[in-house]
Amino acid sequence: MTEGLPMAFPAEGLPARVRIHEVGPRDGLQNEQTVVPAEVKAEFIRRLAGAGLRTIEATSFVHPKWVPQLADAERLFPAVSDLADREGDAAVRLPVLVPNERGLDRALALGAREIAVFGSATESFARANLNRTVDEALAMFEPVVARAKEAGAGVRGYLSMCFGDPWEGPVPVEQVVGVCRRLIDLGCDELSLGDTIGVATPGHVTALLTALNEAGIPTGRLAVHFHDTYGQALANTLAALRHGVTTVDSSAGGLGGCPYAKSATGNLATEDLVWMLHGLGIDTGVDLGRLTATSVWMAGRLGRPSPSRTVRALAPRATAPAQDSPASHKEQ
Amino acid sequence: MTEGLPMAFPAEGLPARVRIHEVGPRDGLQNEQTVVPAEVKAEFIRRLAGAGLRTIEATSFVHPKWVPQLADAERLFPAVSDLADREGDAAVRLPVLVPNERGLDRALALGAREIAVFGSATESFARANLNRTVDEALAMFEPVVARAKEAGAGVRGYLSMCFGDPWEGPVPVEQVVGVCRRLIDLGCDELSLGDTIGVATPGHVTALLTALNEAGIPTGRLAVHFHDTYGQALANTLAALRHGVTTVDSSAGGLGGCPYAKSATGNLATEDLVWMLHGLGIDTGVDLGRLTATSVWMAGRLGRPSPSRTVRALAPRATAPAQDSPASHKEQ
Repeated sequence: MTEGLPMAFPAEGLPARVRIHEVGPRDGLQNEQTVVPAEVKAEFIRRLAGAGLRTIEATSFVHPKWVPQLADAERLFPAVSDLADREGDAAVRLPVLVPNERGLDRALALGAREIAVFGSATESFARANLNRTVDEALAMFEPVVARAKEAGAGVRGYLSMCFGDPWEGPVPVEQVVGVCRRLIDLGCDELSLGDTIGVATPGHVTALLTALNEAGIPTGRLAVHFHDTYGQALANTLAALRHGVTTVDSSAGGLGGCPYAKSATGNLATEDLVWMLHGLGIDTGVDLGRLTATSVWMAGRLGRPSPSRTVRALAPRATAPAQDSPASHKEQ
Repeated sequence: MTEGLPMAFPAEGLPARVRIHEVGPRDGLQNEQTVVPAEVKAEFIRRLAGAGLRTIEATSFVHPKWVPQLADAERLFPAVSDLADREGDAAVRLPVLVPNERGLDRALALGAREIAVFGSATESFARANLNRTVDEALAMFEPVVARAKEAGAGVRGYLSMCFGDPWEGPVPVEQVVGVCRRLIDLGCDELSLGDTIGVATPGHVTALLTALNEAGIPTGRLAVHFHDTYGQALANTLAALRHGVTTVDSSAGGLGGCPYAKSATGNLATEDLVWMLHGLGIDTGVDLGRLTATSVWMAGRLGRPSPSRTVRALAPRATAPAQDSPASHKEQ
């Protein structure tokens, strides 16, 4: 019996509203074994929008050879881009990843209004993920960010390995701050701080956010992107909220991870995040029942259960139709 | 590469040390399908002590018919009770559950020095778990607590369903405070606040702890017992630490749950807890590598992987011998 749960107990010093940056269709599906057809991805994005999500990372314009799962970007994006044209609160932001100018050209040609570049706080991961040094990656992003801004597009900078690295171990805070500063100087509107291997703990999160503020980067331009490899993602999110962060990345049903990072076992599940936020009385605009039903549906397409604890707990009732069915009106 | 991880970043306002109340051998195994032989349980407890845990709930003196998994209490307890006789910091507290005077007699006869009674904040669960009303359960505990205290034994009072109930839904804070007050008045030294179905969120935790303080129950007498059904256990623990709680219940490898509570999917894993606490610079006395190796060993006995995320992340290296093996000195 979960009606009325979680009970809402607002806590002092937390934001009234959080923007969830949903990464399931891109970061999540990118790391699934099953190749999902473009029409199923489009349906997934529409269902996520129907559940109230208003920022949904749609796809990635990397070279199709790099990430076969996302090779259908040219088919997928036009199939959902009308969501961005909706009026007012119904409009859905649909950011897409672009690694270079070629990717930017493809994204802009399809009408993308927000893009994201993806850097690394460590040399090891820059090499593994982009086959470049950190400096070379930033040099590659420079014209991408400049031209995106000229075209009026918003730019997010992802930064991986902000807390630990699978090859280098601990990552010093000042090293992360240095790369963040350079991404901001390139013109990124927002930075997403990635704990790609999930090793962060709440005090580390607070220390990094504080150091970024001291380097002149305001909290309003920072988002957090936690992985649940060691079960820490939600506790880390709580620390970030206490610091004033209001944009949190998560993946519906906990889809995804990172194929190039050893032992990365998946993003924070959007449902687990929403359970906590609603319990804290924080507005997200999300209908948890519809979101859970969407993840149950997607898990069915992938042929395996959702790794989200909340989805598994709520799944027995989430298999009911996402929309009112005639049966539910029988008693009226 | 996890050497040096998690990095320790102490956060303001948190305790310097936390006592982990390990419930794996009792609460964990009680809810496993596989009946574990007494000698394996004793070995489990010794390995947990070897990993640095100093409070290990050993077993339960309920009627053997109620919980067949714990019907070997008379054989198990004497097989580990020497751990309580160790000197100084090496001494291990070995609390045991007792539901009634008959159970108390059995526990005291074997030399138990700490017992726990287990009440419910809700009528529905009191009926399901003890076949009694809340009042009748408290009346049953009254002579148990009084006689335990006379015998010089410490008494913990467990309270289930402190945040939500599978039949009743939301549980009002004042209802929980009322039952806590009565358990303290009976003479319980410590109360363990159970989120048996895992629905709590951090603000709810803070609200309950604050209300208990206002009712005259100091934080020093309160422990928290969170379940990870909705992935909230560690975030809730963080809220409790911020409130000053220094005793946290958890289960090695995330063993257990509650067979009488719908959708209860397991206790907070001790390893996930230790990862966070060590990351916060909080002393636990626990060697995470040895603890993980213990949970991997126990999972092998149970024939299934550990549900702890930290255990799964660290398992590839935890399958190495817990102690130095001759092979590891080959290069010397």
